[in-house]
Amino acid sequence: MGVMLDNPPSPQSPPSRGGEVFFAKELKLNTDVILLGHGSGGKLSHQLLDELIIPTLSQVAQSDQNDAAILEGIDSTRLAFTTDSYVVDPIIFPGGNIGDLAINGTVNDLAMSGARPLAISVGLILEEGLALAELREVLQAMKAAADKAQVKIVTGDTKVVPRGKGDKIFINTSGIGVFDHDLKILGNAAKPGDKILINGSIGDHGMAVLASREGLDLQSDIATDSMALNHLVTKLLAEFGENVHVLRDPTRGGVATTLKEIALQSQVDICLQETELPITQTVAGACSILGLDPLFVANEGKLLAIIDAEKADAALALMRSQPEGGGAAIIGDVVEKSSGRVMMQTAIGGMRAIEMLAGEQLPRIC
Amino acid sequence: MGVMLDNPPSPQSPPSRGGEVFFAKELKLNTDVILLGHGSGGKLSHQLLDELIIPTLSQVAQSDQNDAAILEGIDSTRLAFTTDSYVVDPIIFPGGNIGDLAINGTVNDLAMSGARPLAISVGLILEEGLALAELREVLQAMKAAADKAQVKIVTGDTKVVPRGKGDKIFINTSGIGVFDHDLKILGNAAKPGDKILINGSIGDHGMAVLASREGLDLQSDIATDSMALNHLVTKLLAEFGENVHVLRDPTRGGVATTLKEIALQSQVDICLQETELPITQTVAGACSILGLDPLFVANEGKLLAIIDAEKADAALALMRSQPEGGGAAIIGDVVEKSSGRVMMQTAIGGMRAIEMLAGEQLPRIC
Repeated sequence: MGVMLDNPPSPQSPPSRGGEVFFAKELKLNTDVILLGHGSGGKLSHQLLDELIIPTLSQVAQSDQNDAAILEGIDSTRLAFTTDSYVVDPIIFPGGNIGDLAINGTVNDLAMSGARPLAISVGLILEEGLALAELREVLQAMKAAADKAQVKIVTGDTKVVPRGKGDKIFINTSGIGVFDHDLKILGNAAKPGDKILINGSIGDHGMAVLASREGLDLQSDIATDSMALNHLVTKLLAEFGENVHVLRDPTRGGVATTLKEIALQSQVDICLQETELPITQTVAGACSILGLDPLFVANEGKLLAIIDAEKADAALALMRSQPEGGGAAIIGDVVEKSSGRVMMQTAIGGMRAIEMLAGEQLPRIC
Repeated sequence: MGVMLDNPPSPQSPPSRGGEVFFAKELKLNTDVILLGHGSGGKLSHQLLDELIIPTLSQVAQSDQNDAAILEGIDSTRLAFTTDSYVVDPIIFPGGNIGDLAINGTVNDLAMSGARPLAISVGLILEEGLALAELREVLQAMKAAADKAQVKIVTGDTKVVPRGKGDKIFINTSGIGVFDHDLKILGNAAKPGDKILINGSIGDHGMAVLASREGLDLQSDIATDSMALNHLVTKLLAEFGENVHVLRDPTRGGVATTLKEIALQSQVDICLQETELPITQTVAGACSILGLDPLFVANEGKLLAIIDAEKADAALALMRSQPEGGGAAIIGDVVEKSSGRVMMQTAIGGMRAIEMLAGEQLPRIC
């Protein structure tokens, strides 16, 4: 079955899962209980989705999953619809808090589908004993982020759970976007020859949260990159239209997991250039100390854009001219049709195979 | 300010909050921390919303709040958008579980605005250690409820929190509905002379959850009334159109709190007849033992319909002919324009003033 409603207007596309895309058919749920790794965004997450959640809730093929569901057939309007829950720990971290994260994340999931974000819902789950001052700071950050992204918070809900049954504050944001064009920006649209662009340095969000949570004393501070990318996407689509094949934000699971998802969806091989990956010295140093690979660390203000090679340099220039893209780079190529491999040419000249994040590298990073 | 977007298409109505409506201007947040009662749906909830959440997130007046936000100006389409998080404890209870509750609740919030529910998002927050068998049971109930309501689950997200930082499973559902008519079904539309109808017995859901949680040994079982009401609403609107003035589902805070909200929004006095309130002997008995007032106990498959007096008997007959309305009754009248009082003529002939639920009668009931 598909997800057609019994009567039009009807959603015409399969369900999406806030950026989670699963293909690892070879895996089986070899546990009776939920593990932390099931929330990683990596292999275990995909396994849970593929083996249990998706077959139960929607029974659709997994080959066309994107960050937002597309609803068509509502009069002449095409809408995008997405949801994400935020459980980041700590709730306040350098450069942001769970509030602006929750707005930016959902705005970005809509933007990655090519839609213009329009309206956001906010579902709060508060733990008894949460300081009102912290709640106020989080709410103020939400409002500021929504204003900056030019989306409206139009509906909400507040629940309270007893002390010890939650953790300060969890936030769900769902979003509706509208398409101002007929472009189809989908994970299965990467083509051999395309260039892979990113709008700035990787790993900042994950390392900012981790450093804050663990009280790491780093030489210089790392701040989250949490940021709405819808204005940047609007400019990219206005300028380059159908030459923009794929847009996706590399959140949980990082750049590696996201590119692996795209490679599998588009059935192409992707080759990254390690020397082209933008990464700050502080993030690289912190990752090195902790034994983490920045390719798998979450970002919250970054997008991967897979663009026709002929337009790649111009798209890079446009990105760099924007406040969201000052550190943009071309980081790799789509090389050929295949079963969906991702490789990286390393700094010392070798080739390394990139797979999805296997376990839970950084729990509760978003 | 309103909630207009800077550019059309734009949401034209103020934000809504899943049925939470606040007017108790006299109250002040006299605490520094979140209390369980802030999740009650009653006075403390309204106070938190009015004093902190709404002023921060939207800065709009509270006099036009409803269960779903209305988005207008997207081409020729009028949409409803709503969100609710579900934190009920236990997650499985007589007659249902958190899964079908989460679908029915959001379907009903859309239906109460007069919209036809179309698409639902699902945000899962799972606690590490949750049994997959329980998760499967919950997901299967979600799917069955969605099928029954004829809505599609189109997008989702899954997060995992460490053991002791959540409580098995929290679910957010957000929903989009579409209006097939030009009717405005709003909380401020009750008129003197209108009749107040309910589609069946009160308090079943709250008492089913409480009995299950506390292991109460009742003479006969109480099951939740959790049920989608969209098909019933469709029939009511098709038959009685603009004679249907207000629809609202009396969930947290129960019939009393919901009617008080409507009375305040519409600036009318409402008079209930205690002898007309449908309530099962088992629920009445359990409430009596526990010292609870069924008027304040949550329902999840009930609606209050405020209907032009001339059509009230016919609407009652229609409700009673439907599977969702076998126990329907006319329980009171809108008597006159006022500052928004609710009174109840008691069984022994006295008049009792009805206010909103003051504290937290039953925590985590939905």
